[in-house]
Amino acid sequence: MLKIGIIGASGYTGAELIRLLHRHPQIAITQMSAESNAHQPVASVFPHLAAIKLPELLSLEEIDFSELDVAFFCLPHGTTQTEIAKLAPRLQSGKLKLIDLSADFRLSDPASYAEWYGHAHQAVDLQTQAVYGLTEHFRKEIKQASLVANPGCYPTSVQLPLVPLLKEKLIDSDSIIIDSKSGTTGAGRKAVQAQLFAEVNEGISPYGIGKHRHMPEIDQGLSIAAGKAVSATFTPHLMPMSRGILSTIYVKLTKGASVDALRASLENTYREEYFVKLLAKGAAPSTHQVRGTNYCFMNVFADRGEDRAIIVSAIDNLVKGASGQAVQNMNLMVGFDEPMGLEALALVP
Amino acid sequence: MLKIGIIGASGYTGAELIRLLHRHPQIAITQMSAESNAHQPVASVFPHLAAIKLPELLSLEEIDFSELDVAFFCLPHGTTQTEIAKLAPRLQSGKLKLIDLSADFRLSDPASYAEWYGHAHQAVDLQTQAVYGLTEHFRKEIKQASLVANPGCYPTSVQLPLVPLLKEKLIDSDSIIIDSKSGTTGAGRKAVQAQLFAEVNEGISPYGIGKHRHMPEIDQGLSIAAGKAVSATFTPHLMPMSRGILSTIYVKLTKGASVDALRASLENTYREEYFVKLLAKGAAPSTHQVRGTNYCFMNVFADRGEDRAIIVSAIDNLVKGASGQAVQNMNLMVGFDEPMGLEALALVP
Amino acid sequence: MLKIGIIGASGYTGAELIRLLHRHPQIAITQMSAESNAHQPVASVFPHLAAIKLPELLSLEEIDFSELDVAFFCLPHGTTQTEIAKLAPRLQSGKLKLIDLSADFRLSDPASYAEWYGHAHQAVDLQTQAVYGLTEHFRKEIKQASLVANPGCYPTSVQLPLVPLLKEKLIDSDSIIIDSKSGTTGAGRKAVQAQLFAEVNEGISPYGIGKHRHMPEIDQGLSIAAGKAVSATFTPHLMPMSRGILSTIYVKLTKGASVDALRASLENTYREEYFVKLLAKGAAPSTHQVRGTNYCFMNVFADRGEDRAIIVSAIDNLVKGASGQAVQNMNLMVGFDEPMGLEALALVP
Amino acid sequence: MLKIGIIGASGYTGAELIRLLHRHPQIAITQMSAESNAHQPVASVFPHLAAIKLPELLSLEEIDFSELDVAFFCLPHGTTQTEIAKLAPRLQSGKLKLIDLSADFRLSDPASYAEWYGHAHQAVDLQTQAVYGLTEHFRKEIKQASLVANPGCYPTSVQLPLVPLLKEKLIDSDSIIIDSKSGTTGAGRKAVQAQLFAEVNEGISPYGIGKHRHMPEIDQGLSIAAGKAVSATFTPHLMPMSRGILSTIYVKLTKGASVDALRASLENTYREEYFVKLLAKGAAPSTHQVRGTNYCFMNVFADRGEDRAIIVSAIDNLVKGASGQAVQNMNLMVGFDEPMGLEALALVP
Repeated sequence: MLKIGIIGASGYTGAELIRLLHRHPQIAITQMSAESNAHQPVASVFPHLAAIKLPELLSLEEIDFSELDVAFFCLPHGTTQTEIAKLAPRLQSGKLKLIDLSADFRLSDPASYAEWYGHAHQAVDLQTQAVYGLTEHFRKEIKQASLVANPGCYPTSVQLPLVPLLKEKLIDSDSIIIDSKSGTTGAGRKAVQAQLFAEVNEGISPYGIGKHRHMPEIDQGLSIAAGKAVSATFTPHLMPMSRGILSTIYVKLTKGASVDALRASLENTYREEYFVKLLAKGAAPSTHQVRGTNYCFMNVFADRGEDRAIIVSAIDNLVKGASGQAVQNMNLMVGFDEPMGLEALALVP
Repeated sequence: MLKIGIIGASGYTGAELIRLLHRHPQIAITQMSAESNAHQPVASVFPHLAAIKLPELLSLEEIDFSELDVAFFCLPHGTTQTEIAKLAPRLQSGKLKLIDLSADFRLSDPASYAEWYGHAHQAVDLQTQAVYGLTEHFRKEIKQASLVANPGCYPTSVQLPLVPLLKEKLIDSDSIIIDSKSGTTGAGRKAVQAQLFAEVNEGISPYGIGKHRHMPEIDQGLSIAAGKAVSATFTPHLMPMSRGILSTIYVKLTKGASVDALRASLENTYREEYFVKLLAKGAAPSTHQVRGTNYCFMNVFADRGEDRAIIVSAIDNLVKGASGQAVQNMNLMVGFDEPMGLEALALVP
Repeated sequence: MLKIGIIGASGYTGAELIRLLHRHPQIAITQMSAESNAHQPVASVFPHLAAIKLPELLSLEEIDFSELDVAFFCLPHGTTQTEIAKLAPRLQSGKLKLIDLSADFRLSDPASYAEWYGHAHQAVDLQTQAVYGLTEHFRKEIKQASLVANPGCYPTSVQLPLVPLLKEKLIDSDSIIIDSKSGTTGAGRKAVQAQLFAEVNEGISPYGIGKHRHMPEIDQGLSIAAGKAVSATFTPHLMPMSRGILSTIYVKLTKGASVDALRASLENTYREEYFVKLLAKGAAPSTHQVRGTNYCFMNVFADRGEDRAIIVSAIDNLVKGASGQAVQNMNLMVGFDEPMGLEALALVP
Repeated sequence: MLKIGIIGASGYTGAELIRLLHRHPQIAITQMSAESNAHQPVASVFPHLAAIKLPELLSLEEIDFSELDVAFFCLPHGTTQTEIAKLAPRLQSGKLKLIDLSADFRLSDPASYAEWYGHAHQAVDLQTQAVYGLTEHFRKEIKQASLVANPGCYPTSVQLPLVPLLKEKLIDSDSIIIDSKSGTTGAGRKAVQAQLFAEVNEGISPYGIGKHRHMPEIDQGLSIAAGKAVSATFTPHLMPMSRGILSTIYVKLTKGASVDALRASLENTYREEYFVKLLAKGAAPSTHQVRGTNYCFMNVFADRGEDRAIIVSAIDNLVKGASGQAVQNMNLMVGFDEPMGLEALALVP
């Protein structure tokens, strides 16, 4: 059994890792940290975990990394890089594999990081060594990585459909418009007024228009695929559901391309994939359909103009958009079957 | 007191008319029809109406139009036109004013109607006489109309921000992309599986992609404003809230235009309006903010590219998107103050 | 026009007062305080209020009470009493009427207050002078009061059906079981983790079992009605809706009493009341039916045993359970028609 | 691999069986029926099932029961008994095991069935042979059964806490009051107006007061435990969540009993159980904590009077209240480990 540590277990991605790993047959969670809840019973932090036995919550400094095979880091953005920097020797020796669910190692360009986060990166060496964990597209690199930067939720929902289309030059890279809708867990578990039930219920609104921190991550992924700089329009919306991201993406077809060609491209790319599904022609993805799962459902639709198409993708932000993809990456990094522990169907209804 | 009839009082727009007119000081609801619920107590159809006295529910044929000053028609699309045709003499004599909340008289072009609804219009004469009731933009015509076609909910949310911008040629009319999110009441009160609580909850998905019946209505309004044919991309989404439409609209600026110019245009157009509000710079509209009200809140945001902008509007689909705008139109048609009975602030939270 | 001040305008009861008073024809809101948001635009605290003009937010010490006819206090429990104590001369001179929406003046017995709130009351003189504002049952006293303690939301939902039945000795006062279900706004607008959307959604749970602070208030009201000490079982539940309280109350009938007698008692008590409605036999109250209104809907049902009955009441916790009843009390105190400004029907759906 | 058939796969309990059995390592779903959707793709009935391969939907008469080891019946109440009667020889020969999720075989007394369902039972012989599948309390019988009547959702939530307490005579059997709150899936997937999103959202109301069909099932189970006839007060409520039942139960202690004794009884009864958990003292069960799981969380609280207690239990109505308990029973009937396939933690949040 692989020994697993969860660093930052009192947030939503931490709890989701526990849920997923609980059904993984080849691992054991042996250490967990939760800074402000250290030494409290797990059930006082997450009452549903009263059902099972779990290790005690520790402070981060009490974690013994020499006793871990894999560590998942679920700390807030910005605080992670200095902690991980301390583990560099252990990572380089191959004794520890680390998957970081924060944004700290997603941007490979230090200048871009500094621009969007307002300060210089504190672990630049590791930043350039970290592998970007969009599993279906960086499998080879992930298998050999000791540090994986797990993708953001919005960027996952966007890159999975767009990367193949950009690689095959089926869509214009200069006019991509992404309208995304997210459940509330994307904002984490911190107590803030704007996330109170009565503030979110019966409302939908955009936020971070023109300046959301997932933009450089989306740009980075789309640029690699397109082979040139891409700067996509991206508008996230907060809506009254707990989980899920739906991205509705408006694209211009390149000359000679067609909706059928786009569908064929995605069908060819993902036919053998366990977790990415192109739906039947005309079927609309919904976040409802992937809730609690590691699936990405997607489809392509004709727009009214002949040279335009509409692409829709749906994921669960806490699974394929966070903890599920993290477990998928772990499976690759340690040589397990990729879907192990992630085979769940959606909780419908 | 003006004598008001509500034809089709057992649906959501009917109930909403009752709610709004209950606080209107100059009218009395004297007749109501509800075909399959005729002669049942109103409270068996809408239990909340047990609180007040209302006329008995009749069948449509029992309605005595000679005793009405104004009739609101809330019948399903397609069935309305033949019923209204029977009232043509009364309408032309000016003895009756009629506001139709169905889609039957919204398209002024009979060919367009036939194309989108699959059959020839049954009251072509009236169709061309009907005035389109987007209040802020057709006030003069509405004041003189005897038959007003009340706009659809999506088209209202779209036209209010775009019409001024197209008129002033600040945005390109060929590349408008509208991503709309709606609560469930837009689909009416009919018992269908897809609208069950457990089917809608925790999900969002697009529908009617590329073929929604509000498209020709949107095109018609935008084309008039632009002075040339417009065919906008429009994708509606169904989401778990009861009321509200948020439209996020992606536009390309014309040469020399700027986000500030767009804001100035909307500010100038709507400064004196009671119900249309341009929010402070940077403030995001939410459906939460207009729930239960006749307001349209809107704003303009810079997109990442210099020649692009993002426009967001929020309305309550049952008020400004249906029954509220209908009452606003009635006030104009009969000479009352336009906001009469519609002064409510949003039910927040 | 009466000059109104709202002390504590940044919480939910403050916003609800603004919403209700906006449609009151005889008053003007002239001063508002909001401690931590003083001198910010109202729309930054409550974006929906961007639609109207309101006075600037002040700090409490900036409020000039000599310029107010009526003040509504919406401060947190415990902080109110010392502030109100400072206004005692003004209250006694009759120049100012004050309605306190906190719990500070609801318990007339200082010992009971000290027991449940953990400290001695800081304004004992005023505490004994304050009139308990359960409008339908203390009209005479409220009309003459200068300080009204507005009832709590749960106690309102419980006392309205039970007080008449206890007065007429139709139910046993020793075996009352109250199971209440509340929307989230009852907990206020403070940022706490347990009230985040994702924590509340898809769940229901009891809280404060056996030790909720509304218990002594319920006991006080029921004891007065029964003419002897009552200690009722009361279990509140938090559920995923923004507004509303439903109380399901299990009672034992006294000898000779019957469900019909209970219904007759409530019918007789409330027949002429504007806001309290006994529904038709068999019709179930729902919070849905009273949302946004000052109504209390109630009904009585036969239980399985002959000597038992089930009573159900529904209110909107922010209206009849807080700000609506406060306005109703104001209307009484200053001599307006009691329902003035409160005539709204429910926002359904 | 055991060959499994699901009869009635287009409803919620059918879909839930598919979800649970998908992660069961020892079975294969080989046949499925769905009367009105026969020969349609499964994904047109349940789009989330597009992710996996499943057998074609058949009509009931196309099912070949000779090729099945176990059949789950998910047909509507009333229609099941005649269908199952046809399978009597196969059941008696032991070649087929059958678990019925309808109410048809839950009441062992034909007279009680006829009284509550309005017609004589059509398969009386089987009715008396069927074993009631409340797993933790009828394990021995279930292991030997060929026909198991799977318990109702409310009765499961009520019997699990009360049966041990009645057996040990710790609570008075004559004054049990059960106040239950349910998500909407308990009502099934049929298109009815009262279950539309906009009708359910923001509301809670009781239904079936004094006459719900789960009453005789609850009485039957409690009477067996008490050793005498029990007729409990039971009020179900419909609330805006998809899944979950919370039962708040008010009981009178017998002489000498105490809250601690009640807790000890439940602790002793369920200490070794996989799925039934007594929470830590003071911790409140919530449906949130058991969503998607086969767990029942429960606790006991002191009421205000010394001789009274409040018991709270939470289950997922579709899992422990239906399909999960059905799989648990199957595991027992065929000799698998009881929790096999049911090990999931709650989907939180």
